[in-house]
Amino acid sequence: MASSPKYLTGDKAAINEFIDKFDTFLFDCDGVLWSGDHVFDGVPQTIMMLKARGKRTVFVTNNSTKSREDYLRKLSSLHIPCEKEDVFGSSYSAAVYISRILKLPPGKNKVFAIGEAGVERELAAEGIPCICGTDPHFRRDITPDDFKALADGTALDPEVGVVLCGLDFHINYLKLSTALHYLKRGAIFLATNTDSTLPMHHSFFMGAGSIMIPLEFASGTKPLELGKPSQAMMDAVEGKFQLDRSKTCMIGDRLNTDIKFGIEGKLGGTLHVLTGVHKKEDWDTEDAVAVPSYYADKLSDLAVVA
Amino acid sequence: MASSPKYLTGDKAAINEFIDKFDTFLFDCDGVLWSGDHVFDGVPQTIMMLKARGKRTVFVTNNSTKSREDYLRKLSSLHIPCEKEDVFGSSYSAAVYISRILKLPPGKNKVFAIGEAGVERELAAEGIPCICGTDPHFRRDITPDDFKALADGTALDPEVGVVLCGLDFHINYLKLSTALHYLKRGAIFLATNTDSTLPMHHSFFMGAGSIMIPLEFASGTKPLELGKPSQAMMDAVEGKFQLDRSKTCMIGDRLNTDIKFGIEGKLGGTLHVLTGVHKKEDWDTEDAVAVPSYYADKLSDLAVVA
Repeated sequence: MASSPKYLTGDKAAINEFIDKFDTFLFDCDGVLWSGDHVFDGVPQTIMMLKARGKRTVFVTNNSTKSREDYLRKLSSLHIPCEKEDVFGSSYSAAVYISRILKLPPGKNKVFAIGEAGVERELAAEGIPCICGTDPHFRRDITPDDFKALADGTALDPEVGVVLCGLDFHINYLKLSTALHYLKRGAIFLATNTDSTLPMHHSFFMGAGSIMIPLEFASGTKPLELGKPSQAMMDAVEGKFQLDRSKTCMIGDRLNTDIKFGIEGKLGGTLHVLTGVHKKEDWDTEDAVAVPSYYADKLSDLAVVA
Repeated sequence: MASSPKYLTGDKAAINEFIDKFDTFLFDCDGVLWSGDHVFDGVPQTIMMLKARGKRTVFVTNNSTKSREDYLRKLSSLHIPCEKEDVFGSSYSAAVYISRILKLPPGKNKVFAIGEAGVERELAAEGIPCICGTDPHFRRDITPDDFKALADGTALDPEVGVVLCGLDFHINYLKLSTALHYLKRGAIFLATNTDSTLPMHHSFFMGAGSIMIPLEFASGTKPLELGKPSQAMMDAVEGKFQLDRSKTCMIGDRLNTDIKFGIEGKLGGTLHVLTGVHKKEDWDTEDAVAVPSYYADKLSDLAVVA
């Protein structure tokens, strides 16, 4: 059992010591910087303060619906200082894994992607051929002909070697059934992330994990997960930013993704903020999935020292 | 560990003894009588033979997309002798459970139903108000306004007291997110059944369980299941047909639904046919979920005695 996390809110000395201890901060976005389109008060100022103190700030998000470009636009529009290189998303992580680790042979290297434009764009940026995604052909009701053509294989592309599942606001029976048939034919099963819920407007909607879980249930196969807390993502982040893990802190709102990600990645510290999914009582139990080393009511509590 | 099942195919004496032992046969449909729209050879003759020998034949199906009327039409079109009273489906089982067991008070008795017309019709037949189902309002993409209206509750009907999930070929993000919000507000969570796959055209598609599982995953709540192997369904079947369990045999193709249903219901016997999901090797293991008392290659193997 880890020791109790240190509470930073209102404690200037502790906050200063915390900031001095690290040179890189990895931020989860939803639930930390914003909820849906509502940015939390004081967040831009907090990031600016950290940058002014010479810290590197990296945005590590499991949201697969957006590409790095999309994220950059969103961060900039919310006045959060950021460059494209500072953004690390689960779609990007998945695309990098497919192109640089899997290295599938031509003729078997297509991806059947369940997801939004973010997945498509990141796959394209890595030169990976992809079907489904936002294609209107798959955004429709299943027909009796589809059932037949999936069963006899004529609806299936023999070049598909991977099923990649991310968050898809256009999920339907046709996409799930098509993906299931590729999995039954031996396609590699990947998930951008497996968060069960998506926080928005101070409520919870279906997360990427809830889009993926029918495929796991029906196929009997678990996907390899490429978002937090997967260490495949940490390795990719480390490789890109050449960071010193002992001087890096992960900041998040979910114990089972963000905090676990930081702990398993042997980072120097983890900060939990209470503006998202998990609360104090979630780590105050015997069987807590992960316990942060620090916590604060909200991210902007760090800015009181500025 | 149960003893090995007796193999009936080709053994006239054993088949005769098997038939004589029971006065009621409960049949699963998909995988036993047919696969999709393809009826297996000799099935109508086998049912006729059993009826000619004075047996009651009851069709107990987890397929929630069809009402009893629909099933009657399908059975009749395939020349399988049947009356409406002989059909027992998971939608009917769910409707009976809601109306006669739950007995929700007016003002809190609406059902948010994920499913096809079968669920709607069975709920209507029991006088239960229902929303969603086949309503085109829910068969569309989620919009930014939907996210807001679900989060602030204005899109939610305060009279909904139950979320009932069945097989829905029109499943989408809007329906799942709406159901999740009702569950978070305390609605009772019911499932017509939890089969992960749907056998069709000698292949497998998404079953009702794969439609329901995102809600279980995102809400952290398991539904009460009203199809096989739930004994709520067995109790309802027994209540309706006044059957003698010791003289009743369940015939099916799935160990985890049909055979388990019969064994846990303490029926006189269970017959597994190899025309559907599970094969001999599925019960030939230490950790088999259920072991039938008899098995045959196909249902019509029983007809060789006629």
